[in-house]
Amino acid sequence: MIITLTSDFGYKDAFVGIMKGVIVGINPQAHIVDLSHGIPPQDIMAAALLLRHSVKYFPPGTVHVAVVDPGVGSARLPILVAGGGQYLVGPDNGVLSLVAAAEAPDCVVHLSNDAYHLPGGGKTFHGRDVFAPVAAHLSLGVAPAALGSPLDSFERITWPAPQLGDKRVRGEIVYVDGFGNLFTNIAAADLRRFAPHELTFNCRGRSIGGLADHYALVPTGSLLALVNSWGVLEIAVNNGNAQTVCGAGIGDVVEVIAS
Amino acid sequence: MIITLTSDFGYKDAFVGIMKGVIVGINPQAHIVDLSHGIPPQDIMAAALLLRHSVKYFPPGTVHVAVVDPGVGSARLPILVAGGGQYLVGPDNGVLSLVAAAEAPDCVVHLSNDAYHLPGGGKTFHGRDVFAPVAAHLSLGVAPAALGSPLDSFERITWPAPQLGDKRVRGEIVYVDGFGNLFTNIAAADLRRFAPHELTFNCRGRSIGGLADHYALVPTGSLLALVNSWGVLEIAVNNGNAQTVCGAGIGDVVEVIAS
Amino acid sequence: MIITLTSDFGYKDAFVGIMKGVIVGINPQAHIVDLSHGIPPQDIMAAALLLRHSVKYFPPGTVHVAVVDPGVGSARLPILVAGGGQYLVGPDNGVLSLVAAAEAPDCVVHLSNDAYHLPGGGKTFHGRDVFAPVAAHLSLGVAPAALGSPLDSFERITWPAPQLGDKRVRGEIVYVDGFGNLFTNIAAADLRRFAPHELTFNCRGRSIGGLADHYALVPTGSLLALVNSWGVLEIAVNNGNAQTVCGAGIGDVVEVIAS
Repeated sequence: MIITLTSDFGYKDAFVGIMKGVIVGINPQAHIVDLSHGIPPQDIMAAALLLRHSVKYFPPGTVHVAVVDPGVGSARLPILVAGGGQYLVGPDNGVLSLVAAAEAPDCVVHLSNDAYHLPGGGKTFHGRDVFAPVAAHLSLGVAPAALGSPLDSFERITWPAPQLGDKRVRGEIVYVDGFGNLFTNIAAADLRRFAPHELTFNCRGRSIGGLADHYALVPTGSLLALVNSWGVLEIAVNNGNAQTVCGAGIGDVVEVIAS
Repeated sequence: MIITLTSDFGYKDAFVGIMKGVIVGINPQAHIVDLSHGIPPQDIMAAALLLRHSVKYFPPGTVHVAVVDPGVGSARLPILVAGGGQYLVGPDNGVLSLVAAAEAPDCVVHLSNDAYHLPGGGKTFHGRDVFAPVAAHLSLGVAPAALGSPLDSFERITWPAPQLGDKRVRGEIVYVDGFGNLFTNIAAADLRRFAPHELTFNCRGRSIGGLADHYALVPTGSLLALVNSWGVLEIAVNNGNAQTVCGAGIGDVVEVIAS
Repeated sequence: MIITLTSDFGYKDAFVGIMKGVIVGINPQAHIVDLSHGIPPQDIMAAALLLRHSVKYFPPGTVHVAVVDPGVGSARLPILVAGGGQYLVGPDNGVLSLVAAAEAPDCVVHLSNDAYHLPGGGKTFHGRDVFAPVAAHLSLGVAPAALGSPLDSFERITWPAPQLGDKRVRGEIVYVDGFGNLFTNIAAADLRRFAPHELTFNCRGRSIGGLADHYALVPTGSLLALVNSWGVLEIAVNNGNAQTVCGAGIGDVVEVIAS
């Protein structure tokens, strides 16, 4: 059984390694995959977006653990969200809420049964003390209902919706990847409705004409717009860094004009 | 069998990947877990502390390989320390010496039997040429005694002890994690003896009143003191970076006053 | 079966995790090893060098996937190069061409059979849509010839050759590792032919006398020259960073004088 891990723990410390120790101590056959541990500290939205666009590439029955958890030890609950053949485990702070399956889950469970937690755990590292052991037990076939009490709802965060006009879309940058590519909240479908009109993309005072379908279609160092691997509009630079070139970041407006 | 890897190799190069290639070439069933490869270059103490606080979360029989090894190829010996059901493999420079099991090991072995090393190895990368193949053979059940000759002692590094007074403790910062949390050498027990007195924590001219039990107990951006997942006193900032806020680093004094 | 992954995806995003999800969805028994994901963005030469010096440490039958792919979606082909008992999978941009086995491959295949690709893939992430599923199918025993049509040749990049003189060698820095060690294109054999003459090494106005066989042979902070774990001449600083100390980088000249 596969268990994925997503966190803001970075790569300096052993927090992720410790979680893996707890998991393999319970299920030596667990196949653990790191989704990312480079989430910016406490950035719940970034982790929620990564999960939204990654979970569907894993086989049914995968357990996805997300530990971006600034409220650890407070009143926020540790939860399991099951749906679409996937299990999501983490804090009830919205980090699990952008996955498609989370929109209509089969069940949501408050992870209150400490028989499935690490004995003697504390209030500062639920990744180790609650989420890792629960994920390991899930991967061994423990039923969600055994892990705690059912919940009617869970925390959801808002994906900012683009404004769709007759001849234009006004969206924003919601994620910047490690290459400096600027991911927007504008979906491929938001652009397809303009076909066959020519599109212009504006971002931070720069204008890009036409939608490319791959990076090398423009000269090295030039800006381009394309629908990327998440299926959203992305502003990029061929062989370069659009974040630096545009001086743009999360929250900046991207406008699409059809002519 | 589980093999953990800890090093200062970082994430740019393929040194860790090469070690894994050597391991799986010898034991294709080895389950390899990265503890951390983000140890600051040549920082033996940081690696020794990570091991001290991680090893206990792994099942008995795990082999822990540590490669922070500025003296590779010199007179320092490659060693195995076995104890507490765990195997520690690395250079004899102190990096293995802060693990609890290492305090009273079952055996210490100089890894002198090159039948268990990579043929044709050199003097600059014992991680690949000595420690990885030895760990793989251990995970296959080779007895420690077969790997070389017994040693009576091995290199130990000093964990700085806090000064315990009647109404105060004077300790220091020994580790800073990726969030900028400041880990001290003051254990939970050093604080418990003051109960039920109120505690004040001083660090770099800043004063914190009271011990929190989780981060979100204070407003965003505020300093707090808590006993962290290592079981030591930590100075932190809720949703922030205490290293930056306090301008503090390893070796800086942290004082606890009971009133 | 072992599958290694090498990319310039870094550690912030989930691109590598998504590739692993695709792989384990096809072959749940695949043993995936990260070689490095810290290749500088679009640096085909760095990835080609890492592969050249890593592939030989993996057991026969290993599948090595390299995704440094600025031309993804363009006319450059996705290919498989098989030889020396290893499989290399990636874009035909030279990234696979410095591995020894690639010099005389058993076969080269254009990965044109989309029955082995991810259904519904796009033109911006062949790592996910083409290379990961192909690697997974290879690891299940699918024959190279089934994956597409044979090619007569593939793209090769040039490894800069050192200039070998009677009493000197003029080479250059081709790689800088995470410690700041300066790797040159001068092989051990290029130095051995001068034995037993004394050697002097010049780099960026600094001069080093004699070849060391390990780092700790000189005082902390001092420059040294040695033949490193790649089997090439390296300029290093004991317990320090030669890149910073010398102000040197890729392309800078390193000269060896025999006297």
